[in-house]
Amino acid sequence: MSDSADSTGTSPVLVTARRARAAAAELAPLPRTARDAALLAVADALTERAAEIVEANARDIERARAAGTADAIVDRLTLTPRRIAAIAADVRDVVALPDPVGEVVRGSTLPNGLELRQVRVPLGVVGIIYEARPNVTVDAAALCLKSGNAVLLRGSSSAYASNTALVAVLRDAVAGAGLPADAVQLVPGEGRESAHELMRARGLVDVLIPRGGETLIQTVVRESTVPVIETGVGNCHVYVDELADLDMAVDILVNSKAQRPSVCNAAETVLVHAGIAERFLPRALAALTEAGVRVHGDEAWQKAGLDAGTEVLPATDADWETEYLGYDIAAAVVPTLDAAVAHIRRWTSGHTEAIVTRDTAAARRFVSLMDSAAVMVNASTRFTDGGQFGFGAEIGISTQKLHARGPMGLPELTSTTYVVTGDGHLRE
Amino acid sequence: MSDSADSTGTSPVLVTARRARAAAAELAPLPRTARDAALLAVADALTERAAEIVEANARDIERARAAGTADAIVDRLTLTPRRIAAIAADVRDVVALPDPVGEVVRGSTLPNGLELRQVRVPLGVVGIIYEARPNVTVDAAALCLKSGNAVLLRGSSSAYASNTALVAVLRDAVAGAGLPADAVQLVPGEGRESAHELMRARGLVDVLIPRGGETLIQTVVRESTVPVIETGVGNCHVYVDELADLDMAVDILVNSKAQRPSVCNAAETVLVHAGIAERFLPRALAALTEAGVRVHGDEAWQKAGLDAGTEVLPATDADWETEYLGYDIAAAVVPTLDAAVAHIRRWTSGHTEAIVTRDTAAARRFVSLMDSAAVMVNASTRFTDGGQFGFGAEIGISTQKLHARGPMGLPELTSTTYVVTGDGHLRE
Repeated sequence: MSDSADSTGTSPVLVTARRARAAAAELAPLPRTARDAALLAVADALTERAAEIVEANARDIERARAAGTADAIVDRLTLTPRRIAAIAADVRDVVALPDPVGEVVRGSTLPNGLELRQVRVPLGVVGIIYEARPNVTVDAAALCLKSGNAVLLRGSSSAYASNTALVAVLRDAVAGAGLPADAVQLVPGEGRESAHELMRARGLVDVLIPRGGETLIQTVVRESTVPVIETGVGNCHVYVDELADLDMAVDILVNSKAQRPSVCNAAETVLVHAGIAERFLPRALAALTEAGVRVHGDEAWQKAGLDAGTEVLPATDADWETEYLGYDIAAAVVPTLDAAVAHIRRWTSGHTEAIVTRDTAAARRFVSLMDSAAVMVNASTRFTDGGQFGFGAEIGISTQKLHARGPMGLPELTSTTYVVTGDGHLRE
Repeated sequence: MSDSADSTGTSPVLVTARRARAAAAELAPLPRTARDAALLAVADALTERAAEIVEANARDIERARAAGTADAIVDRLTLTPRRIAAIAADVRDVVALPDPVGEVVRGSTLPNGLELRQVRVPLGVVGIIYEARPNVTVDAAALCLKSGNAVLLRGSSSAYASNTALVAVLRDAVAGAGLPADAVQLVPGEGRESAHELMRARGLVDVLIPRGGETLIQTVVRESTVPVIETGVGNCHVYVDELADLDMAVDILVNSKAQRPSVCNAAETVLVHAGIAERFLPRALAALTEAGVRVHGDEAWQKAGLDAGTEVLPATDADWETEYLGYDIAAAVVPTLDAAVAHIRRWTSGHTEAIVTRDTAAARRFVSLMDSAAVMVNASTRFTDGGQFGFGAEIGISTQKLHARGPMGLPELTSTTYVVTGDGHLRE
């Protein structure tokens, strides 16, 4: 596509984007063998050059500690030889995945003899804007290379030294394998301005994928003229139906909420059918409390808390809306399945909702009325994940409806082209 | 998805969008039979109420004539009982198409026994912003209803009376068949402000599809916070390779350019390999001239024009960029296939490119280096069309890479949801 007015400047970001575009044109016709060889070279180089990566990472850690960053965040930022080896192993796993490029998605011979094939092709230039963890730098680059795309990486300033070192290793390995080094680039600059320029590089960048918290994602959605794939915000619900197996419901609720509360597929709200509330609420409260979860409940839950001697905080609209990402859950009793549906449609971020029921009609109705990326029937919300779904890798979980919805694997990093072959065919 | 800050107002447009959202929730769980019955009722009603539609249309025509509108445009605006019957017949054709909703795109049983299905679901609320032709009102509504979507129609003010009458007929028929009337709505207001509000109704409208000229499309792309599918701008190229069959090349060139020059899949530029220019240019010039086509050529083409006594206008960058949509073509001679590729990648709108060659290696290289929605090998660019591709219907031709690329049929009006069924499955 020809460059738009937005992308004619000569700033470092736009120069970088234009190099990525040129690299993408070189990558597009390469066969799988060439891309896989580059990825194997990347995996080797990461292990071989672990020392210099760790050294750069130490500078980021020092800066983070000096700024009083919390230990948990410093830990996520930290790279060790062992962690680098694990990242390299992940790259090798990506090599082994099926090649999405060139897959014939649809094909037929038309009545006039024209041969029609819809073929997967790389998107071109993929921009990733992400926070903290430097492992994303390598993961994202590997998935983009595997799918034939050039990648522009815009990590957080807190990991700038680590990302710079990682990208240097990646570029050397890619170039050593005969691919254009500019297939992998760090977006220059640490300030907001460089991210903003990336968002306006329509015509140069084919898609932007923000990975991080809701503020980051909403900023990109609002400010970007480049097409965006929204990822990861998960206000997930568990609905316990009147005909639920209560043991199963307690287990699914606790697993959905507390197995790993910091991630997007963790549950944030539980809705319980009034017909079983009296039996279910005391058991749920006991199990949630034992798992260290605070309940923010409606009147029914507050009353159950009083009866059980467990504190239940009063829930407000803010609770229905919040992605706690921690040991808190919002809780309400609903008169009917349809009331649960209405609540979820009102408040969900469109990630994952679960129903627990033995009633096939209730399951069918719930599934048909949801408007989310994934719906679980008698299973934990925590299963919405590219690895769990068997995709082998995941660049993020889309909570939007266009192009990709739910866990995004390699096919979601491609577009398609119609290739039509004739023998002098003319339109009449 | 919960309403965003953009969509909390109480303007007539947002009230309409909110009604559409409620209608979409009602439509989503309906089976095909219900949607098909509504479409058949629409087809019947159009024929039965043709008189009142023609009467409303007469007011638009009168206004257009009073404003001195060109005859060709008045003709496109005109509805007659016969044209209305043809529109109704098109609706019946849509009824007969396969249902995209509920199709299982991908499915498996995971190692832990979870049953995974990726199922097509309606997008929800589809907004169409379009120009002139009132038949688009019915076509777009029919395709959206068939795919389970509510539709917001924003036609041009020149067809406001016609569109109002058509939508009244559609709504009555839809409601009579037991579906929510608000599944089909005209966006209130004729001014720019109402279109602009529609573009900002993120969270209420799931996708906007602009259909019309480049100015309209670029405005929507630039101003919309709702995801947009770009359609229809076609700066299409025909490349005549050194090893082309020259008879075939002349025929494909003339067909691509002149069979119907006003549409997006008509060719706008021809590139000719230097090795055959001397033999090809005189023949091409003669054939193009006979078809009434003016050539805007580079020096080689201008020289060929002088030799043949045919006027060839000098081409500038503006010509390489222009979608003439008429009897004009830009023309250049290129030293190599790769030079043709570079020209096309620089100037194309990403719609359709064609190569004419007998050389399989050249065809393969050309196809692998294009970055457009469709690539023709030895066939006219005019074949990029949902009807020609056998899709049965088309809501537009996407020239972007995300979600849909090329002719968009019913599946492109859907998203997907992962439905995961277990038996108390927990994540470990």
